Amino acid sequence: MADIRVVVVAPKFEGNVGAIARCCANFDVKELYLVNPCEIGETALNRSKHGSEILENAVICTSMEEATEGCFLVAGTSGTITKGDKNFARIPVPVREFAEQTRAYDEKIAIVFGREDIGLLQTELNRCDLLITIPAGDEYPVMNLSHSVGVVLYEMFQACHVPPKCEPADGSEKERMFQYFGDLLDAVGYPENRRETTAVMFRRMMGRSIPTKNEYFTIMGVLGDAARLIRSGGKWEQKR
Amino acid sequence: MADIRVVVVAPKFEGNVGAIARCCANFDVKELYLVNPCEIGETALNRSKHGSEILENAVICTSMEEATEGCFLVAGTSGTITKGDKNFARIPVPVREFAEQTRAYDEKIAIVFGREDIGLLQTELNRCDLLITIPAGDEYPVMNLSHSVGVVLYEMFQACHVPPKCEPADGSEKERMFQYFGDLLDAVGYPENRRETTAVMFRRMMGRSIPTKNEYFTIMGVLGDAARLIRSGGKWEQKR
Repeated sequence: MADIRVVVVAPKFEGNVGAIARCCANFDVKELYLVNPCEIGETALNRSKHGSEILENAVICTSMEEATEGCFLVAGTSGTITKGDKNFARIPVPVREFAEQTRAYDEKIAIVFGREDIGLLQTELNRCDLLITIPAGDEYPVMNLSHSVGVVLYEMFQACHVPPKCEPADGSEKERMFQYFGDLLDAVGYPENRRETTAVMFRRMMGRSIPTKNEYFTIMGVLGDAARLIRSGGKWEQKR
Repeated sequence: MADIRVVVVAPKFEGNVGAIARCCANFDVKELYLVNPCEIGETALNRSKHGSEILENAVICTSMEEATEGCFLVAGTSGTITKGDKNFARIPVPVREFAEQTRAYDEKIAIVFGREDIGLLQTELNRCDLLITIPAGDEYPVMNLSHSVGVVLYEMFQACHVPPKCEPADGSEKERMFQYFGDLLDAVGYPENRRETTAVMFRRMMGRSIPTKNEYFTIMGVLGDAARLIRSGGKWEQKR
């Protein structure tokens, strides 16, 4: 994951600062810099939860320059998407695109968030190498400050981490399960003209659910038992 | 976008409920159902901002069954990822995968969030059709309740909306810009043995930045002017 520093310019509510520290802890971000923040007290500490260390180690600065020193790339955040492309200083990159582009980045990146009410000033935006934005609904696209930090850090984290997955079933197991299902359709005397449609539907359903090996074996067991039981007139022909 | 109902079971802090209403408004979700919530007062209203209508119209229920009535799919949220695959009731799908799978879904989906401290109870989890989770850092993966609502709704929204883009430059414009850059390398007498490497590096840089037409034309103008000026010994040969 890129080496990220979260910079918050002039936050007004300490609760937000605490919530931001928690978001940093959630997504393995260690550096929090605050430019001319409000007073940081108990409320912030309570909201930070297990991010309290990040809050306590937050670096207080008096300017954005100071807070972004040593960062190779400075990304500002903006809740407003400029539609035209002439005002280049205000064209933001969607955060997912930014996260993907910086996935293999080695240098330190500052992500700069603005005030709760008016965001970053034009002079601050102009100091950023690029702007990123969170695509949201047209009617009310402006998220709360700490929630937007949460979404941005979430995206940065996702770009660098493949979520842990249970071992998925491999192709042969899947095929055997579909055979078992087909066998069950035979066993129940399913109408020939609707067989294929139903088999495909089952395949699609299973496909969407991305079952694990254990789940496949479980389902196979059920289908197989059902077909055998039907064929034997409800009695077990043989011990499984 | 899928028709989403946010269900929150037994939230303890009204501030979180207000923040959740705001997240709903940010991502075009209209339905908020609260199961046995704490008292909802001024704090919640203040935090909801332009989501106040959603908060005011929130439906108060006394059970999860009641809150999910009429929903075709009930997705629970869980901060804990079970590593093995035997405990099928606790294997969650990463939220991005869920959002992609339900992108074209027509039925109503309930997304159920649990209490701030202990989340959803086992009996509540068992009532869900599937579980979704937000992949986060190993050390402290548990987000604040309203922040996790923010991330989940963000993902649901992204899956259904292509972010507005400025008109990107097309291939011929790009090639012309690279020609201009090569021409400038000629003009400055750039060493032959390093030319190609530098040209490729420039191309890569431009590629990563995904410039708009206007940006390409702007850069082309600069490069072209520079090359012409160099060739003419610093004087304009012709009016542009």
